[in-house]
This record gives sequence, C-alpha cells and structure tokens, in this order.
Amino acid sequence: MASSPKLFSSFHNTTHNLQRRPSSSHFLSPKKLSLQINPNSPTLITCSSLPILTSKTQIQNPLKYEKQEKFQAFKEDNRPLNEIWPEIQGSNDWDTLLDPMNSHLRHEIIRYGEFAQACYDSFDFDPRSKYCGTCKYQGIYFFEKLDHMANYGYQISRYLYATSNINLPNFFQRSKLSSVWSQHANWMGYVAVVTDEQEVRRLGRRDIVIAWRGTVTYLEWIHDLKDILHPAHFSDDPSIKIESGFFDLYTTKEDACDYCSFSAREQILSDIKRIKERYQGEELSITITGHSLGAALALLSAYDIAEMGLNYTNMGKKIPITVFSFSGPRVGNLKFKERCDELGIKVLRVVNVHDKVPKVPGIFANEKNKHQKYIEEHISFPWSYAHVGIELELDHMESPFLKQSKDISNAHNLEALLHLVDGYGGKDLGFCSSATKRDIALVNKSCDFLKEEYGVPAYWRQDENKGMVRGGDGRWILPERQRLDSHPPDTAYHLEQVFKFAAKSTLKAL
Amino acid sequence: MASSPKLFSSFHNTTHNLQRRPSSSHFLSPKKLSLQINPNSPTLITCSSLPILTSKTQIQNPLKYEKQEKFQAFKEDNRPLNEIWPEIQGSNDWDTLLDPMNSHLRHEIIRYGEFAQACYDSFDFDPRSKYCGTCKYQGIYFFEKLDHMANYGYQISRYLYATSNINLPNFFQRSKLSSVWSQHANWMGYVAVVTDEQEVRRLGRRDIVIAWRGTVTYLEWIHDLKDILHPAHFSDDPSIKIESGFFDLYTTKEDACDYCSFSAREQILSDIKRIKERYQGEELSITITGHSLGAALALLSAYDIAEMGLNYTNMGKKIPITVFSFSGPRVGNLKFKERCDELGIKVLRVVNVHDKVPKVPGIFANEKNKHQKYIEEHISFPWSYAHVGIELELDHMESPFLKQSKDISNAHNLEALLHLVDGYGGKDLGFCSSATKRDIALVNKSCDFLKEEYGVPAYWRQDENKGMVRGGDGRWILPERQRLDSHPPDTAYHLEQVFKFAAKSTLKAL
Repeated sequence: MASSPKLFSSFHNTTHNLQRRPSSSHFLSPKKLSLQINPNSPTLITCSSLPILTSKTQIQNPLKYEKQEKFQAFKEDNRPLNEIWPEIQGSNDWDTLLDPMNSHLRHEIIRYGEFAQACYDSFDFDPRSKYCGTCKYQGIYFFEKLDHMANYGYQISRYLYATSNINLPNFFQRSKLSSVWSQHANWMGYVAVVTDEQEVRRLGRRDIVIAWRGTVTYLEWIHDLKDILHPAHFSDDPSIKIESGFFDLYTTKEDACDYCSFSAREQILSDIKRIKERYQGEELSITITGHSLGAALALLSAYDIAEMGLNYTNMGKKIPITVFSFSGPRVGNLKFKERCDELGIKVLRVVNVHDKVPKVPGIFANEKNKHQKYIEEHISFPWSYAHVGIELELDHMESPFLKQSKDISNAHNLEALLHLVDGYGGKDLGFCSSATKRDIALVNKSCDFLKEEYGVPAYWRQDENKGMVRGGDGRWILPERQRLDSHPPDTAYHLEQVFKFAAKSTLKAL
Repeated sequence: MASSPKLFSSFHNTTHNLQRRPSSSHFLSPKKLSLQINPNSPTLITCSSLPILTSKTQIQNPLKYEKQEKFQAFKEDNRPLNEIWPEIQGSNDWDTLLDPMNSHLRHEIIRYGEFAQACYDSFDFDPRSKYCGTCKYQGIYFFEKLDHMANYGYQISRYLYATSNINLPNFFQRSKLSSVWSQHANWMGYVAVVTDEQEVRRLGRRDIVIAWRGTVTYLEWIHDLKDILHPAHFSDDPSIKIESGFFDLYTTKEDACDYCSFSAREQILSDIKRIKERYQGEELSITITGHSLGAALALLSAYDIAEMGLNYTNMGKKIPITVFSFSGPRVGNLKFKERCDELGIKVLRVVNVHDKVPKVPGIFANEKNKHQKYIEEHISFPWSYAHVGIELELDHMESPFLKQSKDISNAHNLEALLHLVDGYGGKDLGFCSSATKRDIALVNKSCDFLKEEYGVPAYWRQDENKGMVRGGDGRWILPERQRLDSHPPDTAYHLEQVFKFAAKSTLKAL
C-alpha cells in the first residue's frame, strides 16, 4: 500500500512532509477509533484516537470508515480576525473559544508563542562568548534573523534588560570572560509594535507585544525560588504580594551599568507610554507573552501596566491587556490574582499537564484550595499563591509525534507546547495529527522529543561554528558585534510622566 | 603599556589576532626566562620559558633583554622542499631534523595532520541523521568544503569504507533510523593525489595521501581492544601479528553491502595500483596519515602496501612509504615492527605524553622491555606489542595557550597536537609561543582546551542547524544528499592484478 487513505481531510489542506513521516503514520488503528459527532458543531469530528505509528497496524475494513472523509477535523472560523479580535484576546475570558478550539485563537496562541520562542532563538547562552547574556541580533534586524518572523509585520521598539540580586542558575547568564559587555545585565526580551499596515488591518488594531525570555532547559531555579511573598508596591495596597525573586528581577537596577540603569519595570513602563503617544488616536492592544520564568514576568508586567493606569488612552479609552502565558509558574497571592481580575487583565495560561513549573510556587496553598481566601486573610499564611486567568491544559502523551517522555525539560519545552496547541481540537477531542499545520521539526529545535522515526536531529537549532568566522588572514575569530543600544534617550522623560500620572490618579482616587 | 615589547621576533612574521589575545600574553616573565644558545644552530634561541599570561607580570628591566630581538625563535630551512623531500619523508629516519625541529618538517607534519583532521571535520556523527556514518561531502567537493584545504592541490581518488564484526563504541557509527544508507558500512577516510602541477613541483614528487578516520573523544574502545594478536596473513610468515580488532576492521567485508563488498584493505590495494598506473614514470610518494584508531590503520595499511610489493614502480623503483601517525596505539608484535623496518616503512609517531592511547595495547610487554624479543620468541607471550618508527613526544603542559587539563580526551585531541607541533622548537627548547603560526582557535574545534581568556568557544565546529534547512514550503528538512560512490568500477580488476603480482613475487622469492 503505497499511499495512505485519508481518514481525516483537513480544511487547511495541510501538506505533510512525507519524507520525514513514515507512511504508516497516516494509518489509524480501527480498534482505537471512536467517532463522536459534537452536537454543538455538527461538522466537527473528534480525534480522541491517535494514529498508531506501527507498520503492523492494518485497517481491516477500510470501507467502514470511508464516510469519515466527509468530515473535517477542525472547524474553521470564517469570520475575519479584525471583527472578532477582542474576543480572541480574551474579552469574554475565551468562553466557547477553547472547546472546541477556535481556529483564530489557535493561530494567535501559536503566533504569540513564537514571539516568546524568539527570545530563546536569539539569546547568546555561551558563557565563553564575550556577548554572553545578550541578544545575538541588533534590534532592527531582529525579526528578519528569525526565519519566518520577518513576515509578521512587527518592529522592535526596545530591548529589555534586567539585573538580579538573586541566584537564578541557567537563567541569568554571566560570561566567563573578564571584558564582557556588562557584568550586571542580561537581555530579557523586547517590546515590539506591528508596523505593517496590512497586518494592522488584518489584526483590527495596532498591537504592542512584550515578550519575555525564560529558561529553556535546566529547571533548578524552581527550587531556588524562595517562595517568599513581597508586597508589589505598585499600588498603595500592601496586601497584594508577588514572589520575591520575580519582584527582584523585575525591579532591580544598577546605576553602574548602562543596560540596567533603569529596571526592567522602568523600561517597560516608559516604553508603553512612548508607544501610546506615538500612536495616539489609534485602536491599540497590549499582548504580553513569555515562557517559564518569562511567563511570570509577563503577568507581573501586565499587572504593573494596568495598575499604573497605562492601559488607558489619553481619551480615557481602555486598551485591552492580554497575557499569553506558556508553562508559567504562579506569580502572586490570591489578592494579586483578584486585583488582576479587577483590572481586567486577560490571561490564557497554556500548560503541559506533565510540566512541574506551573505547579510552583504555592504547593501548600493555592487556588485549588477552597479555603485559600480564609487562609490568606485570616491566618496570614505566607506561602499562598494563586494562578491568574484561564488554563489551557495540554498533554504531550496525546501527540503521536512525541516520545512518551518523562523528562521534565521536554514537558516544559515551549516548541513542544506550541505543537500541542497546533493539534488540539478541544477538551474531549484529543490530538488530531492529521490536522496539524505546524512543522513538527520545530519541536526538536532545543530538545530530543520527537520520535526517532521522523529523522529530525535533536537540539538542532545552532549557529554555524558557534558564530566563529574566518578572517581575512585565514584565522578564526568571533567577529565584533555592533554595540547594542541600552535605553532610548527619552526613557527618563517618559518614566517621569508615568509616575506623575499614577500619582495624580491615586490622588483622584483618594 | 599599550604595545608589547617583542622579545622574540619570529622569522614567520606572525601576526597574532590581538583581539583574542590579551596584550599581557606578549610579556615574558623575566624570572623564568632562560636563554641558551644552541651550539649547533647559532641563530636559534630556546623558548623553554613560557610567556606568563597575567597582567600582573611586569618586565623590571626591559633593556636587559633588548639584544634578544636579534635572535629568531625557529631557524628556517631555506633549502627548497623539492630538493630535500626524501629526508623530510624520513629517508634518514628524521635524523637531525627533529632536534631542533626542521621548519619544513614542522610544516609537513601539520599539513599531513590536517589531512587526518579532515576526516573528523567531514564525518556525519549524528545517529539521528539518515546519513550517519558517511562523509558529509561528495568526493569532488571534499577539499573545497574544508576551508583552507582547497589550496592544498589534492583531489580525492576514492573514499574508504569498512565494516566491522567487533564492538567499537563511538568509532563505528550506526544510524538510529531504519532506512539508512548502509547498515554495515562506515566511511573511514580517503585516498587522494596531488593534482595541482605547481604543488607537484613544490613537493618534488606526485604525492599520494591515504588518510584514516579515528576517534575524536570517547576513548572506551581502548578498553574494548582485546589485545589478541592475529597473524597478519599478508605474507607467508605467521609470526607477524597484529591486534585482532584492527585486523578485523581492515579486512572484513560484507557482500550484502555496496560500500563494503570490498574490505578496506582491498579498497586501498586496488586504488594504489590504479594510481601507480595512472602516473607511471613519475616520481611518487605514498604518505599515510591517521589519528588514534586511524593511526593504527595507517600503519597497518602501510605495512600491507609494502608487503604486497605495491611500493615499487613497474620499472622496479622503490616508492617511499611514510606514515605520519598521530596519537596512535601500538598495532602489532615485535616481529611486525621488525618487518616494517625491513620493508623500509618510515613512521613518525607524534604523541602527547599525557595521552593514554599510545600506551596501549602492550602494557605488559612492549618495545621498552629489553627482553621483548626473548619473551615473544621463546615464551610465546601473546600480548607483546611494539611501536614502529620514531617518536616525537610533545607535552601540552608546555603550551601557555592550553589549560593544564588532565582530561584524557584533551590530551588525545588531534588539533591540540598540531598546535603543539606548531610551537615545538626541539627537545630542550620547549614551546615557543611567539613563533606559533597556526591559528590557536583551531584547538577548540572539538574540545574545551584553550584557556578561557582567548574567548574561543569550546567545541565550536558545528554545522548551522545540524544541516536542517527550510524547504520551499517553509518546513525544516534534512535535505537529501547525493548518493556517495561506493567503489570505482575497475576495483576488482586492479585487485586481481595486485594479488597476481604478489603471488609472482612470492614464487620468485621461493
């Protein structure tokens, strides 16, 4: 049998790279096939059965399943995004959009996930490099260096840097060389704005993206988090508390260093202010994304922007703030969660059920405990944490492309999570491998998670010769990089405006 | 002090890449400086003192050392290579050429070492690749893919393949994919001939190179060698014995496989025969090189070619056979060594004194034991091994560029060994860092051996994205490679001729 019967015809007209997929992967084991017509969406079929990747699998009675070809795996939402974007950004808390998964939402989760992934793909992790801890690319070339992202229509507004007083192994990278670009700072991500006008029209608004870098592999930092809650101090309510390590990373600055003479917090606030002014009168959205520790910073910065009232235009119109959070830990206490809700921050937390990071901190008291409010307010239990927002829980054991791995760094991998989003049909629909549009090879960029039969090298994302090039004299060198910009010259000005405005609002409120 | 005083002015007019070398590296600690005028070469100064790489080092009285500038670190042999090449190839067993090191010889050791290194730089080690175990490049593009080797003026005559019945972890690479190019064969190296006529003139002869691939890192195979001696059977003297693992690798064939339907031995013999005929009437040389396990195969094949009488032209003129062996183990018994000497094979064994591989097999009985001959002949001790040829022993602790590493894979590294040859002045001259011409960055290609202050990434030699590229549809794939040639069509014919000739010689001898 040379060609495989198409049991599920995809609406996306997906072309798989057959070269890397044995033809047997297209067969479904009839024994495990369970078809259920979802009453809410009659053209949708479920994919709770998985294609069995064994050549021994035989379809005993193919005719029996012929009618399935009439169905489509995923229903496509034909409404244009620019008409429904507030919903996709969570205005209704993604009600009815997650089960079954709305096609626009799936696409947007993946798109924003790629903004977070870009922080890994561009970061210089090599402690032997004198640029260790920086972004490998200058801001103006950032998206064009990241393959397909050149087509996303965004431009970097500024890079984000942070310094830290706490120990975050394998997150905070320090160069082993004495003459490094900075002894204090680490590149943490970026603020970008959609500038391609066609894309602005497609999205229905001018979108501002903040993307935070996280941790790719080594997860020891979750043990190093002291779980100590620290008052956020972004409002005058001291009962709103966040984990002290995240607070430190977000707020610490170091005058002696060009890159962290403003804290990450100050960089964010001033830049949002600047962009708001640059595009005043336009419809705006703020979308914040991050993976792992970056997801914590995403939520923290979302809260900060809202708490500082930066999510209002000069005309008093509210700018929606959405957090697409991937594999994120808990960030603050129940009070923090309630305040985020009150401020109208929309958070979609995408997690792999086998990942441990989203389960910390707050193992002893968290949002699953009915009495958390009581514990927090009356017992003053100091290790009480609550997740914010809506959870989209995925399971890598459901993807037939992935190994049944128990490796925690696999379960925590962002590319793998985006792959799971890609095949996710809905809560009871399982993983639909015949509808996946996203290149499965991306999963193995920085892990060893794809089944071996796909022939994709593990950890394949790497620079040629680690950036070494042969100079004119034939000798190998690491070429000098252009100095990275530290802060836009008007950072202090905009920051001052932010705090003035916040003070005024507080006075008003009083 | 911005510029550094030139204590040793090199004849080579070496320009160091200052960017990667702190200027302090040019200072010599006066306390450790010991100058000895070598009576045999009055213009040579010794470099037994090493530059101390610390910014604290200060030269207390620079004037005291000014006269040193008149000296040169290494004496240059101004005779053209084409006049003295037999000597450089070992016709006098490198007598007087090694101490002090002759400049032509240093250059030639490095050049042939690079032919061996090319086998590592081009080998596909990735078990996830369907081309695992092959050369990454087609023969016609081989040297041009290897950076500077395009200028060497050689062309590949054929690739060498082998199969094996024995267990050689991390040497014999098998793909994890089911549809691999061959389940049996591994690419083992190549035969090449100098074809650039200008280079032929410079060398003084048409040189044939055989280069064997070895093992880069993981050295467990030295424990797996069974140390069992096997009669070589290339002559009618059964007392000439070689280690059975090397014998197996060199002689095993597998009819079911295109690539190893001829054994490595048969591939070598037939190709040397072909090349000899192609260039008959010309002055020829055969130079065989290899590192580690490849060094063992180099010696074995040198012996074989000589034993089969392939080192004579049709006119009866002897073609010199030289082995430049790097980090090689012992190969055969004392009888084997004596036969190699008798056949006139010239072997220069370059080793790092801290490397363990050249110390095996034959820990119990080897050439250092005065009674080896008695032990071997009268007691028939079955684990008696002898090194063949002249040893050039180097010491990585003497290079100021390298870490004082005790890592055995560093001590066994070929690029590091070539670096040591580069700075080697002679037995008591130590390492002369101010005369090194070779790019030190090469050392770290596949190890972590250079001191960190040079800012060269460790293990930097790598392909961009492990060879993955984005296809037209935007998906990442490992592109298909052109099928590699197995054997030239006239292999069987030439092989038949070789054995006919050998049989005739044996009859004559009888």
